[in-house]
Amino acid sequence: MTSEATPALLDFRSDTITRPDEQMRVAMARAEVGDNVIDVDPTVRELERRAAETLGMDAALWTPSGTMANLIALSVHLGRGDRFLATRNAHVLTNELGSAAWLAGGMPDVLEHDAGPGRPTPRAVHVAAGTRSGPYYALRTTLLCLENTHNAAGGAITPPDEHALLVSAARDEGLLVHLDGARLWNAAAALGLPPAALTVGVDTVSACFSKGLGAPVGSVVAGSEEFVEQARRMRQMLGGGVRQGGVLAAACLVALDRVGELTRDHANAKALADGLRDLGWDVSEPQTNIVLAAVPDVRLTLESLRSLGILTLPMAGKVRFVLHRDVSADDVAEALDRIKASAK
Amino acid sequence: MTSEATPALLDFRSDTITRPDEQMRVAMARAEVGDNVIDVDPTVRELERRAAETLGMDAALWTPSGTMANLIALSVHLGRGDRFLATRNAHVLTNELGSAAWLAGGMPDVLEHDAGPGRPTPRAVHVAAGTRSGPYYALRTTLLCLENTHNAAGGAITPPDEHALLVSAARDEGLLVHLDGARLWNAAAALGLPPAALTVGVDTVSACFSKGLGAPVGSVVAGSEEFVEQARRMRQMLGGGVRQGGVLAAACLVALDRVGELTRDHANAKALADGLRDLGWDVSEPQTNIVLAAVPDVRLTLESLRSLGILTLPMAGKVRFVLHRDVSADDVAEALDRIKASAK
Amino acid sequence: MTSEATPALLDFRSDTITRPDEQMRVAMARAEVGDNVIDVDPTVRELERRAAETLGMDAALWTPSGTMANLIALSVHLGRGDRFLATRNAHVLTNELGSAAWLAGGMPDVLEHDAGPGRPTPRAVHVAAGTRSGPYYALRTTLLCLENTHNAAGGAITPPDEHALLVSAARDEGLLVHLDGARLWNAAAALGLPPAALTVGVDTVSACFSKGLGAPVGSVVAGSEEFVEQARRMRQMLGGGVRQGGVLAAACLVALDRVGELTRDHANAKALADGLRDLGWDVSEPQTNIVLAAVPDVRLTLESLRSLGILTLPMAGKVRFVLHRDVSADDVAEALDRIKASAK
Amino acid sequence: MTSEATPALLDFRSDTITRPDEQMRVAMARAEVGDNVIDVDPTVRELERRAAETLGMDAALWTPSGTMANLIALSVHLGRGDRFLATRNAHVLTNELGSAAWLAGGMPDVLEHDAGPGRPTPRAVHVAAGTRSGPYYALRTTLLCLENTHNAAGGAITPPDEHALLVSAARDEGLLVHLDGARLWNAAAALGLPPAALTVGVDTVSACFSKGLGAPVGSVVAGSEEFVEQARRMRQMLGGGVRQGGVLAAACLVALDRVGELTRDHANAKALADGLRDLGWDVSEPQTNIVLAAVPDVRLTLESLRSLGILTLPMAGKVRFVLHRDVSADDVAEALDRIKASAK
Repeated sequence: MTSEATPALLDFRSDTITRPDEQMRVAMARAEVGDNVIDVDPTVRELERRAAETLGMDAALWTPSGTMANLIALSVHLGRGDRFLATRNAHVLTNELGSAAWLAGGMPDVLEHDAGPGRPTPRAVHVAAGTRSGPYYALRTTLLCLENTHNAAGGAITPPDEHALLVSAARDEGLLVHLDGARLWNAAAALGLPPAALTVGVDTVSACFSKGLGAPVGSVVAGSEEFVEQARRMRQMLGGGVRQGGVLAAACLVALDRVGELTRDHANAKALADGLRDLGWDVSEPQTNIVLAAVPDVRLTLESLRSLGILTLPMAGKVRFVLHRDVSADDVAEALDRIKASAK
Repeated sequence: MTSEATPALLDFRSDTITRPDEQMRVAMARAEVGDNVIDVDPTVRELERRAAETLGMDAALWTPSGTMANLIALSVHLGRGDRFLATRNAHVLTNELGSAAWLAGGMPDVLEHDAGPGRPTPRAVHVAAGTRSGPYYALRTTLLCLENTHNAAGGAITPPDEHALLVSAARDEGLLVHLDGARLWNAAAALGLPPAALTVGVDTVSACFSKGLGAPVGSVVAGSEEFVEQARRMRQMLGGGVRQGGVLAAACLVALDRVGELTRDHANAKALADGLRDLGWDVSEPQTNIVLAAVPDVRLTLESLRSLGILTLPMAGKVRFVLHRDVSADDVAEALDRIKASAK
Repeated sequence: MTSEATPALLDFRSDTITRPDEQMRVAMARAEVGDNVIDVDPTVRELERRAAETLGMDAALWTPSGTMANLIALSVHLGRGDRFLATRNAHVLTNELGSAAWLAGGMPDVLEHDAGPGRPTPRAVHVAAGTRSGPYYALRTTLLCLENTHNAAGGAITPPDEHALLVSAARDEGLLVHLDGARLWNAAAALGLPPAALTVGVDTVSACFSKGLGAPVGSVVAGSEEFVEQARRMRQMLGGGVRQGGVLAAACLVALDRVGELTRDHANAKALADGLRDLGWDVSEPQTNIVLAAVPDVRLTLESLRSLGILTLPMAGKVRFVLHRDVSADDVAEALDRIKASAK
Repeated sequence: MTSEATPALLDFRSDTITRPDEQMRVAMARAEVGDNVIDVDPTVRELERRAAETLGMDAALWTPSGTMANLIALSVHLGRGDRFLATRNAHVLTNELGSAAWLAGGMPDVLEHDAGPGRPTPRAVHVAAGTRSGPYYALRTTLLCLENTHNAAGGAITPPDEHALLVSAARDEGLLVHLDGARLWNAAAALGLPPAALTVGVDTVSACFSKGLGAPVGSVVAGSEEFVEQARRMRQMLGGGVRQGGVLAAACLVALDRVGELTRDHANAKALADGLRDLGWDVSEPQTNIVLAAVPDVRLTLESLRSLGILTLPMAGKVRFVLHRDVSADDVAEALDRIKASAK
């Protein structure tokens, strides 16, 4: 009879599903708090100070989500109808429900990944931005959005040298640069670099504590002191100003100490990719914690995996496996076993 | 030497400053959680279920702030350029940084408090809405926003019978009705009625757990199942979709059991108002937890109180004292003593 | 049998109904034109030059309507969520379909007419703007909108001295000033002053050629050179950039020479008001070309007048008669006769 | 001495520069007019009736520009954040200053021209729209924008059969279809088909009278009666409601009779392309009235042509020559002569 027990779910849908552990819960329970709208919550302040330092920026602002962090940056940077450049399938284009358009008022121009997964060439930036020099009745390009690691490109890393070239191209064209660094921690861990090494030259960067780092709620958007002042006002407008946010920031502070631990997820991603490839799957080599598999019919594969107790999500026309704190090396092995068994 | 010690701060600025107590912190630490974007966090779900029930609505949606709760309701209700009616100094007009206009796209029409503090007359609703019947090139009035209790009117209550007349007037004119119930709990506690008795006939209502009820973060917006479905999408667009929100919802659930305790704040408000009046201040009779004092120079009085260690904020041209969990009857007595002593 | 012929329609609905006369049509037919988007149409340029001069501003921009002229000014002046002040029933609040809110992103604060019809007191400006000095989470008031003459106040004039006090109050509070001068020509004609005498100190002013002056299509918005540069871009965004606009501007140039002729409409308005008063109507003394009559039931009176072949529109709860080029002194006498006859 | 006279300018910048001829000017001077906001201008009504009929739609609405015509359609079709599909370099993406984003609130997804110049494949529509079927937190694709002829693709035609396949793909995916038909007349003339043959199955279509057809000002947007009702309101919001628009509509009516004459421009385009090719230029075969030339340095070529008295504009990284009523076959020959002479 036991053979009919439902197998445990193996959840590869997203690193957002990570649950706070005991250490985080204790930190939350003990957090010193204040009213972070009319005063400053001391724990939020401490998080913002440390996040700014870690990201190599002057100042940072806590937000309830990465979507809001990006939305605030775009809303501050973009005037009505300004054009911004973003890579195909960038999170700001596809995962934020069009808020870059209707809220930030920006018209995107899509750059292809012609320098490699998740990365446009500096030349593409020059070409796309060139229309900026047009007459009054032409679109004005004002912003380049980068994403590192790039989610839809399978957690692909933009290394510091390429990052520098892209920032330089943007500067030449008079563009501001925003970096969607929701998973910047993964890039830093994979490269063995401090996160600040990956933000050189940007105006603003967002980063998330609620993905691989495991905090329950919270992101930051960082930039100059002046930017953060405007961002604070924008956060209030959007309804992101919370009161005793210290209870959440406490968990984010714990998360911030765990960047190095992400390499474990990267090793698991590699193991999973290798295993799938051995089983004949068409998977690209993961650079961080995401494995994309090209399959003939995404929907069918998602359902078939689900029937094995393996949860995944579709991403840019492929099946995406995300490795994270709540999936162990044993879980990866178990997933591979199930897939192998079902293929017989 | 002890006489020169700084006196303890007595903080009457807002009930938003209330800090979570031990019971809430334990609840947060123990909360069962899930990813509330791609799944449903069980504790958030439980809060939404109980909040909907308490508010007498079909469904509810957690939001990180009351500002976002109202903003979501207005964004769902209002088409581009639609006119909405709100009382002078309503929170949606003055405390949400214009988001009703630029985000929800609504043009307000201001109703005076001609039925009493915080309340327009049904006739004013009829008159203002009348323009709705105009030609295609006329503004279309589609929504009435009520606020109960009304912050800028000194925590004034709209009793059920007047509420019913206003809702009825709105219905006659084909208007939707949104109730900003950030402090609806106070109205319910003061009247000895269940909160649902104060939402009869409305389409949507927002309510806040982070004011007098003492939760660190969180509000809800409630309405029909269909409304909540649209609201969930709008919340995501605004960046209010959080992951393991259960850690916050757990505190909100504790808060929800404390509505009855708000009468203590109301008693303290009455004591403060009586005491101030005895000292010659021009204060109106508080209906709930807010005391407004008319003074010749608001800025001067705010500073003078601050020098006594008494913190307050300006509100609608007056000095506002807000009573809450973290101010005791003794604190009120102490505040009155300090004011009395300074007046000599 | 002749007694049963339908009487000629007497159309007092609006001065917008005025039709271009022969002189205008000839001017249009002969207008020199160019592509006013990619080049500059010479006739449009000449109109903009002359309008700027007449209005006492550095530069002006032609727009297809007064609504767009105001909308452009507000869109350039207002940041997201900025608060602007406007008098109750101002055209920018009631007649532009909420575009000030959803397009310009501005949250209005309504000033009452406490200095006289159509005019707030400078003190009201100070009080309303005062909130500007608040903390980051408070609404920011950045603009005062005046309207001269004030349509909903019955074509009421703000004389130069009161105008100066209002502008001065706005300046003290750091506010920009936009003047909706759709019927500024009427104020100038009635006072015997050049229009520029009524724009002293404003940042921007709109004025309309398609109302009492009789041009078929066209308004201007005027301000500094820098403002007009931004306005030109905004006009293009809104779809107000037209090609051979000179055919319309030619008629506007004819209109600009006719400001002095508006006094005829004012005399007719006075005759109508006197006549109605003699018949027992409750009408206020017209200052320009608009007569407002207070009646027990607006809808009923509109219909009753219509049955006499007299067309009017409702305005701010009253019946509005507008005098214009296409209504003669004889028409006024005829209208009074019909009303008198029907009252027997 | 005469040899030093400045040569006449040959203006190939755009067909928007065409000036109204005598017939149009007479029609404008004689037009019967009315107030098209509060009444209906009879000539505007007649134009709208005839335009709807010609375009094969139920109803049409006059607008001051093609930009506004498209903007109205997108604003009516798109909810906040809705995704729409448009081909790379479509006019709604590049030539309308981002109004599709900040005004209509739409987030574009760019389709490549993989079926030929200006045309995506139906498969690309299916793939891009597929994300529509996602969860509540995913972008919702609701609209396909086509453009026929396609400006940036060199006036390329989408023939009826391909049009039908694209519309069918959109329908299968539940998408609305808007056709930017600014130069639909050119496609119809080139194919020898009535314009209505090119709008089969679309929800809305815009068309322009102020390009090749030579009217000074005016476009239409056409669709169902219900759409036009909403569009009329949107036009008023945007400031596109004009009063005696009949003076412009009269010229548009003349223009509407001239669709067949566009073949002259197409022949001239062919002659120009052939001539340039003979001179060694890299030009593609024109399908209608636009010739795109690939050159090593666009800016340099534009300047060099300008020094010959030949005006052109850049378009999508090439040099664009537009043929129109005000450029004759002789002008084409003259232009080729000048280029040939300068090349020696």
